[in-house]
Amino acid sequence: MSTGSIFIGEFLGTAILLLLGNGVVAGVVLAKSKSQNAGWAVITFGWGFAVLAGAYASAPLSGAHLNPAVTIGLAVHSGEWANVPVYIAAQLLGAFAGAVLCYLTYLGQFKANEGEVLGIFSTGPEIRNTVQNLMTEIIATFVLVFVILATGQTKGLAVSGTGVLVVAFLVVGIGMSLGGPTGYAINPARDLGPRVAHALLPIPGKGGSDWGYAWIPVVGPLLGGALAGLVDIAVF
Amino acid sequence: MSTGSIFIGEFLGTAILLLLGNGVVAGVVLAKSKSQNAGWAVITFGWGFAVLAGAYASAPLSGAHLNPAVTIGLAVHSGEWANVPVYIAAQLLGAFAGAVLCYLTYLGQFKANEGEVLGIFSTGPEIRNTVQNLMTEIIATFVLVFVILATGQTKGLAVSGTGVLVVAFLVVGIGMSLGGPTGYAINPARDLGPRVAHALLPIPGKGGSDWGYAWIPVVGPLLGGALAGLVDIAVF
Amino acid sequence: MSTGSIFIGEFLGTAILLLLGNGVVAGVVLAKSKSQNAGWAVITFGWGFAVLAGAYASAPLSGAHLNPAVTIGLAVHSGEWANVPVYIAAQLLGAFAGAVLCYLTYLGQFKANEGEVLGIFSTGPEIRNTVQNLMTEIIATFVLVFVILATGQTKGLAVSGTGVLVVAFLVVGIGMSLGGPTGYAINPARDLGPRVAHALLPIPGKGGSDWGYAWIPVVGPLLGGALAGLVDIAVF
Amino acid sequence: MSTGSIFIGEFLGTAILLLLGNGVVAGVVLAKSKSQNAGWAVITFGWGFAVLAGAYASAPLSGAHLNPAVTIGLAVHSGEWANVPVYIAAQLLGAFAGAVLCYLTYLGQFKANEGEVLGIFSTGPEIRNTVQNLMTEIIATFVLVFVILATGQTKGLAVSGTGVLVVAFLVVGIGMSLGGPTGYAINPARDLGPRVAHALLPIPGKGGSDWGYAWIPVVGPLLGGALAGLVDIAVF
Repeated sequence: MSTGSIFIGEFLGTAILLLLGNGVVAGVVLAKSKSQNAGWAVITFGWGFAVLAGAYASAPLSGAHLNPAVTIGLAVHSGEWANVPVYIAAQLLGAFAGAVLCYLTYLGQFKANEGEVLGIFSTGPEIRNTVQNLMTEIIATFVLVFVILATGQTKGLAVSGTGVLVVAFLVVGIGMSLGGPTGYAINPARDLGPRVAHALLPIPGKGGSDWGYAWIPVVGPLLGGALAGLVDIAVF
Repeated sequence: MSTGSIFIGEFLGTAILLLLGNGVVAGVVLAKSKSQNAGWAVITFGWGFAVLAGAYASAPLSGAHLNPAVTIGLAVHSGEWANVPVYIAAQLLGAFAGAVLCYLTYLGQFKANEGEVLGIFSTGPEIRNTVQNLMTEIIATFVLVFVILATGQTKGLAVSGTGVLVVAFLVVGIGMSLGGPTGYAINPARDLGPRVAHALLPIPGKGGSDWGYAWIPVVGPLLGGALAGLVDIAVF
Repeated sequence: MSTGSIFIGEFLGTAILLLLGNGVVAGVVLAKSKSQNAGWAVITFGWGFAVLAGAYASAPLSGAHLNPAVTIGLAVHSGEWANVPVYIAAQLLGAFAGAVLCYLTYLGQFKANEGEVLGIFSTGPEIRNTVQNLMTEIIATFVLVFVILATGQTKGLAVSGTGVLVVAFLVVGIGMSLGGPTGYAINPARDLGPRVAHALLPIPGKGGSDWGYAWIPVVGPLLGGALAGLVDIAVF
Repeated sequence: MSTGSIFIGEFLGTAILLLLGNGVVAGVVLAKSKSQNAGWAVITFGWGFAVLAGAYASAPLSGAHLNPAVTIGLAVHSGEWANVPVYIAAQLLGAFAGAVLCYLTYLGQFKANEGEVLGIFSTGPEIRNTVQNLMTEIIATFVLVFVILATGQTKGLAVSGTGVLVVAFLVVGIGMSLGGPTGYAINPARDLGPRVAHALLPIPGKGGSDWGYAWIPVVGPLLGGALAGLVDIAVF
């Protein structure tokens, strides 16, 4: 895969991931939306199918990482770091673009809204505690990256083209099971790109962007992904 | 594929799509239905599995477009326009027939109903604004058609016959994530065929067919599908 | 496949189908159940995964019909009627056995229950009207059998072993979309076998078995299945 | 597969199974969790995707049993008992470790909680009755193990790598359909490992570990799994 193909694939795929992922939260949270108050099952399936959409869109171009924690985990496992910067740059830009597209899709709802909207864009903890929040993100991301790496050992998934489908349901499951405390960022680009979008977009009454928390959903997932890569070397 | 095979496949497939798609909304909205008030998860999974049913029914005959936006997107991408008229004609007629079959399936409920029923047949916006509604339909349909085109690059899905399954979950996801503002037509035939059926069927107190809005879920999806075809040429 | 293999496969598969299918309704309806009031999404996914379980159990032995309407539809399509009686006999006996196993699984809940329980075993209409109820069952079963026959034309599903998975989601979708009026029997064995079990089991206050309605979920699905076989001959 | 590979695979896979499985219940039950009161659909899908995650993680190393009832069922069927002790030891240790990881993931919520938490870790009956509870666990586990053994006869699932995906949805279905009376342990390690963790972890106000019931979700699943192995010998 060429550098250009990687950049385009990761940019488009991560943009679609965030458009749909931010979108499902926007629909559930904002007034005058047909999906208002649709509940946790819709949010977690919505994020899983957001991964499905973004990953099938980018798989032929870039291999569908869409997540710096996945990129780091694969690099730790394979020892190949050359393309890591282009992957991560494209993911961050794509995540920002996806959040802006979500804003345009729900433009009327955002204009009519009163109240803070950061929860549509980025994650935040139910109980604010640095060590606990970091630990939650590390554990959840370890599961994500370790299982993705393990599916690479199940040859049939590549033959049948269903590896992405499996990962989509994996993401639904991680959300359902481990999303309660922090909202499962499990992806630095998924959290940081939309947070920048939240800071820049002209949304009335949008509230603060909570930059004090912003490093946790970056550092936690990177540590979890790297740990998965290390364990993967040890066991496979 | 012969013209006759294409016509039969698209007619039957789109009829099944609308029978089930309109049906899930009828069941949730109408009184004296076991699924009344079943919620957004049922509506969005119901529409996704409606695609699954219609697409597996038509795949061997016509390749399972079921949607003029998909047909246009593929034509833009491939440059082959000869069969486009027969695809679209069959989709519109099939969508009309499916809406009538939905009416027959829920005949008792429709007869017992009091109040407007257009929402069972066709889409409408939560906030009426031409530019915003068009934008929402363009973005949502772009995602649909671009990801469908991308799955065509994932060879394994054809080998395993699971491409339709992936598209079904994609449609669930688009509904969950982007359906809030306009009800995600993302398919001109899905909206226009049932709207004609709504106008013609003898349903007591059915209300108006909202023809002033009817062009948006036609034009928006066609633009989104064509845009996906163009981007697809650029990136694949 | 030998006659013995067919009988065992269909008996076991239909028993598992009804154990799980009746079971999901029992759990949602009965008091002192962890799934009480779990809603329509759980009922429809539960029935779909009941098909998944019964069909994978019986596929290697009998080809996983589990439903006289499917058996009739395949016989009309193929012209081979020799094994039809053994299929249907095993399906009816298996459905009865599955309903009894459901009763044993929820024995404590049934003993503690007060009130009618026919809805756990068999279907019934929300609005009682012979023509409308028959029409609903014919249309819903036509979709089921026609799409099953069409998936037989998608070679990859056999290669990948995922045909049953697709049919399971198809059944979820038919339930979500067309189950509102009559509870979607779409299978004579699924309705008649448990109705006999309901009549025989010693459940306090169980109410009547509604034999006046019992022929509709038998005749409707058989007509719908045969119609699907005929249309299948015409189009494939 | 070497003994070391089996041990590592089963330990990691069962740890992930319990981390996610206990996690989904923790999120639904505990206060200050984004998924509080998310309902039965989330719990059952969450446990199914927990199986998906643990099984894809361990499949290349140990064949993804994750459950002594599955191990026993396979041993009865194949007659090979040599590795049974290492499988079961690793499953029990992994289940304990997964429960501890769940505790760490929800540490803040556990600390803030007031009231008993055994239901997050292990199963318990709605109506306490030894014969009934045993019968429910035997029947539910028979379905699990018999269908898993039958999927081994469907060659395409191995080719396409989707066997685990099918088993994940099977577990969702067993939960939805048969989980009402006892909470569907269907796995001795899934129940006993976390019960030990509950007994040892320093959770304020955690309540008793209900050791009087603890043998039922061990013995019932082992009997159900062995029975499935025996029936499997007879029919396949």
